[in-house]
Amino acid sequence: MQTDLVAALDIGGTKIAGALVDADGRLLVRTQRATPAQEDGETVARAVDEVLAELAGSALWGRVTALGIGSAGPVDASNGTVSPVNIPGWRGFPLVARVRAATGALPVELVGDGVAMTAAEHWLGAARGYDNALCMVVSTGVGGGLVLGGRLHPGPTGNAGHIGHISVDLDGDPCPCGARGCVERIASGPNIARRALEGGWTPGPDGDTSAAAVAAAARAGHPVALASFERSAQALAAGIAATATLTEIEIAVIGGGVAGAGDILFAPLRRALHDYATLSFVQGLKVAPALMGTDAGLVGAAAAAASAPTTPRRAVRAGR
Amino acid sequence: MQTDLVAALDIGGTKIAGALVDADGRLLVRTQRATPAQEDGETVARAVDEVLAELAGSALWGRVTALGIGSAGPVDASNGTVSPVNIPGWRGFPLVARVRAATGALPVELVGDGVAMTAAEHWLGAARGYDNALCMVVSTGVGGGLVLGGRLHPGPTGNAGHIGHISVDLDGDPCPCGARGCVERIASGPNIARRALEGGWTPGPDGDTSAAAVAAAARAGHPVALASFERSAQALAAGIAATATLTEIEIAVIGGGVAGAGDILFAPLRRALHDYATLSFVQGLKVAPALMGTDAGLVGAAAAAASAPTTPRRAVRAGR
Repeated sequence: MQTDLVAALDIGGTKIAGALVDADGRLLVRTQRATPAQEDGETVARAVDEVLAELAGSALWGRVTALGIGSAGPVDASNGTVSPVNIPGWRGFPLVARVRAATGALPVELVGDGVAMTAAEHWLGAARGYDNALCMVVSTGVGGGLVLGGRLHPGPTGNAGHIGHISVDLDGDPCPCGARGCVERIASGPNIARRALEGGWTPGPDGDTSAAAVAAAARAGHPVALASFERSAQALAAGIAATATLTEIEIAVIGGGVAGAGDILFAPLRRALHDYATLSFVQGLKVAPALMGTDAGLVGAAAAAASAPTTPRRAVRAGR
Repeated sequence: MQTDLVAALDIGGTKIAGALVDADGRLLVRTQRATPAQEDGETVARAVDEVLAELAGSALWGRVTALGIGSAGPVDASNGTVSPVNIPGWRGFPLVARVRAATGALPVELVGDGVAMTAAEHWLGAARGYDNALCMVVSTGVGGGLVLGGRLHPGPTGNAGHIGHISVDLDGDPCPCGARGCVERIASGPNIARRALEGGWTPGPDGDTSAAAVAAAARAGHPVALASFERSAQALAAGIAATATLTEIEIAVIGGGVAGAGDILFAPLRRALHDYATLSFVQGLKVAPALMGTDAGLVGAAAAAASAPTTPRRAVRAGR
């Protein structure tokens, strides 16, 4: 980690946040705009410009040595573009060039939001001290990122660790991505709620049909609600076990709204991992809740940028 | 790759092979023994000693700078032990210590046989020039290994890339490993044959019920034989797509007896990959047959040993 400041952008379908982050991961300056997600691409880009202008107006800006971007995906770090599912005005949008035009000669690193969250958990959160880790978010969608051999593994395009779209049920239900039986198609919050409703669970008087409401019902012992979380946990376990069997991760860190269900998710998840992580070298796999909270994207984007120039591959990319 | 010689051992349930390998991957000296796989562990170890003694008797031995071992798994590179499924006398057998006792101060690198095969294909075979690759063997079992960011990724215990035991059918048939619906349980040669027989395929007058015989029937248009290969291809595609989605591999290289079926396997595999590798960053994934043949294990063990000292993590391991 460098000793001076890194600028960070966290770009999602709801908000565009920016910060100046110090070498201890503190956000010294922080700003954000609502994402005008349904507007044209130029309007979205102007919101990014505004966030950057606010950061650049800080007296601390002169100490910034690099800029990291974590963006909703898909991203393509190899050519600096993003195509976030929730921002239809951006398809192949040249975000790195736009940011570079606004910030000058700073090295810019772009990664997907799952990779950014992973960088944050590895730097200061639940994956700290682990050389091989999967960090993931289970929420409306399921995303993730990998640390391998002590370093962030974004992959050539910045999308590695996309555990939500690996198939654990090859004949299963069609997924919006085009495949079948993806982890996200079984484990995400909306799918937990859908399964509970299909199974006969009914929401309370407030009409809340979120996964959090299903979790509350499960906590009260509702068998259909419990079963829906168990099925989610089973799919997560199969995906996490697959990741461990392929890459030898030592820990899986899970954040996001669905992880907020606590033991309603984690207890069946640990049981199911026992069923799927069977080979000797993955039997010691740990599972832990994420620790970094809502600023993980900013802290992680800073971490990805700060660590990028140390690897020749990414130094080349930054120079493109 | 170093400019002098590396000694290599390839340890499997059928044979224990050894070689002195030069910087171009040529086997200058080669020897082997049948594996006394059903004998006690000390008897198996003496066969290794004999192979090493024969190599050490070569006039070229003085030029050897490192020794690589590729072994049937599971292996545990972190403590230098092996527990090959097909060699019951070795359970947690301290192979690295045994080899070191026979060879003195040479650095010794231990990896699983799937990782060794991968090192060979990356050095001189079908994965040459790719920075991110999965190499696999589809045969009696299904094994593999990974190259990530231009380097072999053995993982802390030397087992990474174990694609045969990731579940692609979380409610599927029990696998001998303890999980369900593993790639190997669907895609291996014996499972191709089993499914064909269950579907009503009958072998020819020679009674050959191997996957090769099923492939011959498929080539002649037998629908049950074709369907069994298609199911194998579907499971392989789901596993390969999962690997790509998690790690951003650019190519999957497939060797082993089942790959010998050629287009009977590769044509449905390429079609099925289109169904499972759906995200933008994996749509360009390539598939190719392996090129290195029966000496891949020796060449790859040498490659793993020659490249090991360049990474601090593995240099530490070798010094234990």
